[in-house]
Amino acid sequence: MRHLLTLEHLNAQGLNHILSLAEQFLTPEGKIVEAAPAYLAGKTVVNLFFEPSTRTRSTFTLAAKKLGAEVLNFDIQSSSTKKGESLKDTVLTLQAMQCDIFVVRHNENGTPQLIADLLKENGHVINAGDGTHEHPTQALLDMLTIKQNKKDFKHLSIAIVGDILHSRVAHSDIQALKILGVPDIRVIAPKSLLPDNAENLGVKVFHSLATGLKDVDIIMVLRPQLERMQANDFSKEEYCKQYCVTLESLSYAKRDVLVMHPGPINRGLEIASEVVDSTHSVILQQVTNGIAVRMTVMSLLANPQL
Amino acid sequence: MRHLLTLEHLNAQGLNHILSLAEQFLTPEGKIVEAAPAYLAGKTVVNLFFEPSTRTRSTFTLAAKKLGAEVLNFDIQSSSTKKGESLKDTVLTLQAMQCDIFVVRHNENGTPQLIADLLKENGHVINAGDGTHEHPTQALLDMLTIKQNKKDFKHLSIAIVGDILHSRVAHSDIQALKILGVPDIRVIAPKSLLPDNAENLGVKVFHSLATGLKDVDIIMVLRPQLERMQANDFSKEEYCKQYCVTLESLSYAKRDVLVMHPGPINRGLEIASEVVDSTHSVILQQVTNGIAVRMTVMSLLANPQL
Amino acid sequence: MRHLLTLEHLNAQGLNHILSLAEQFLTPEGKIVEAAPAYLAGKTVVNLFFEPSTRTRSTFTLAAKKLGAEVLNFDIQSSSTKKGESLKDTVLTLQAMQCDIFVVRHNENGTPQLIADLLKENGHVINAGDGTHEHPTQALLDMLTIKQNKKDFKHLSIAIVGDILHSRVAHSDIQALKILGVPDIRVIAPKSLLPDNAENLGVKVFHSLATGLKDVDIIMVLRPQLERMQANDFSKEEYCKQYCVTLESLSYAKRDVLVMHPGPINRGLEIASEVVDSTHSVILQQVTNGIAVRMTVMSLLANPQL
Repeated sequence: MRHLLTLEHLNAQGLNHILSLAEQFLTPEGKIVEAAPAYLAGKTVVNLFFEPSTRTRSTFTLAAKKLGAEVLNFDIQSSSTKKGESLKDTVLTLQAMQCDIFVVRHNENGTPQLIADLLKENGHVINAGDGTHEHPTQALLDMLTIKQNKKDFKHLSIAIVGDILHSRVAHSDIQALKILGVPDIRVIAPKSLLPDNAENLGVKVFHSLATGLKDVDIIMVLRPQLERMQANDFSKEEYCKQYCVTLESLSYAKRDVLVMHPGPINRGLEIASEVVDSTHSVILQQVTNGIAVRMTVMSLLANPQL
Repeated sequence: MRHLLTLEHLNAQGLNHILSLAEQFLTPEGKIVEAAPAYLAGKTVVNLFFEPSTRTRSTFTLAAKKLGAEVLNFDIQSSSTKKGESLKDTVLTLQAMQCDIFVVRHNENGTPQLIADLLKENGHVINAGDGTHEHPTQALLDMLTIKQNKKDFKHLSIAIVGDILHSRVAHSDIQALKILGVPDIRVIAPKSLLPDNAENLGVKVFHSLATGLKDVDIIMVLRPQLERMQANDFSKEEYCKQYCVTLESLSYAKRDVLVMHPGPINRGLEIASEVVDSTHSVILQQVTNGIAVRMTVMSLLANPQL
Repeated sequence: MRHLLTLEHLNAQGLNHILSLAEQFLTPEGKIVEAAPAYLAGKTVVNLFFEPSTRTRSTFTLAAKKLGAEVLNFDIQSSSTKKGESLKDTVLTLQAMQCDIFVVRHNENGTPQLIADLLKENGHVINAGDGTHEHPTQALLDMLTIKQNKKDFKHLSIAIVGDILHSRVAHSDIQALKILGVPDIRVIAPKSLLPDNAENLGVKVFHSLATGLKDVDIIMVLRPQLERMQANDFSKEEYCKQYCVTLESLSYAKRDVLVMHPGPINRGLEIASEVVDSTHSVILQQVTNGIAVRMTVMSLLANPQL
């Protein structure tokens, strides 16, 4: 594995190997270990973010430093791309600056692949979210969170609620859940927030929480990505009335249902405040796992023998 | 002491303990020691600045790194707060990212307290300035500067000149000076830059430099905070004529009077250029002391046994 | 050598000494060594950039960290200069914050010298580009790249093509080439992009690639600095037709001609894409050498005995 652009070429064994390594970066209490092996000593990680992000960028930064890397935050706003430099030259220049690992977020699908193609002999690319396409490290941290709480993937019912249409997280999560053999994957959303022929994703499609959440083990909530919608196409009020995950919604699910959310959260829009703060929520555990998973991926790319 | 939100719960002994520790981070020439104990090894300090600041943020950053911490600069502009995330979720997310010390600046009074309330089991908050309320580390560095130059607080006359109304520095300095037993604290300002009933702060109020500076040991100069005023309410020319601290103003004070200023300085507005560059000025010593004091506060919060 | 503001006081021996030291920071394959001596341990380097730059700023940052320094990125946008602080006070404040090395970029000629004059007893200034004046570390990395590929400077013909008028790089490169005894230095540009009396720079002036590139060993290409021009004064189409360095242009030069460019590149404007990607191009080698040269300069300033 030279790059992590997608999960689609991984099998269950490969994916479980990543999760097992990630657990080694966590204490029994679920925190990041204070000291980790310097798997990235002498390496430089560059954050190449063409879309704003604090959460993902920060966790990559903390993960990289924990492993002994230097981190370069490449600020697109003040960069030479402003003076007309092409993506190709920006990337080759960063490689000439001895950047080893490129963490890429871009609003266009496929840009991380494009960058990987530019890096001829060495250099690693991690897809940190491209357009509405994929976000593989988010899916990995979600799988780690499920594994910690549910142990076995083989008998789970999981529902993803919300803006499936614009969500690279949904896409990558469904991919990972299928690889790990989850038998019952559902999406719950209004038609306007579903891709055409959503069934082709290999999921069951529901348009109401009452039916879709029935007896599920896990609810993954997604925010409506308003920044990718036309203002007139979406009524927050209407959405909330039908799809906001409330304490009442949880009653449709199993008693020990877990609630997940990739963040950022809009309390009172796609998820009720009481749900976020309830014992069902593992949202903050997801955040910490994000560091462990990113430490793992970077360690693996730079040290194939792990 | 788990947080540093205000100085009001400290007594003279506690405050002097902090100043003594801070002196250990300084060389005899008043510079920061090259190597300090790694009191913050494995810890992450997050700068959570909702108001622009370079000086304070930079000194916290340098102080944290000197002690072996990792520093996360949380950029509010490009963060998820833009996507509608609440302060509560931002803070809990940062804690889940394993941030241990929250350095908070906010334009609203009380935000650091609010954040401290959100951090249930662990995590430390340092108030790096909230609204017109408090700025405790600035007061600590000011006290350290006075201690270095005057030794004893018990016989000092100190005048604070300028925009008392909008100044969290004035507020915290007055608090600290009273704790340390300074018998004569004065404020000098036009009525429009004083809070109502300024006497209630426990200070003597003056409206002219000639009377207010008489025989003082120390002059603390504050800039007019134009960004917190209405444009029409304030004439720079008028202010300068009456309240600019000049070499002539110093003649009212004791011969060895010290001049302090928290910065940034407006030469020729609240302070004459010649005063800044005179031997009376300890303004740059204040800057260096800012690092020592912030090293001390962070060390103490993370290591209560110190 | 306390500061590096210009190359004009260096002789060939001094300049060659710098290049030899820089080579020690490179592996035989031309990469930066993984581990370097901690020549800057305990030191703080501040990037004081008043003009946007990613490339130069990043390489200074990576170079400083490789040598064990702490790096402070002073963000002019959110700094106290906004609140009216003068350059003098900003610089003295940074020095009081224990900054040792000031890396300065400014759009006005002479600012680095001005800052050097402000730093009384200690502190080092490196000119990272001032206006249309000088950019000494760029010239040093260019000389290192030439030395690696051509060994001897004494028999070279070198042509600089493009916007000489606005280019601090051209200015510093010509200075360095003359110091190293290059006998044939040429500039090729339209009159509108040349200073008056360009011959006084000690170069031969050409207005066509066909005559100017004849038998040269090295072509240094410069981009038109559109941001320093009036929109109407310059036609990209016209410029490209006459001055874009293409594969055909290379046929005028020696067979083993090297093509250099300080970046950022505008493919299809001042240089053809095929030239950038050809084996003649050493543009990415220049980028890596930029780190080695900046490591060298900072090491030398902080350790005069080297």
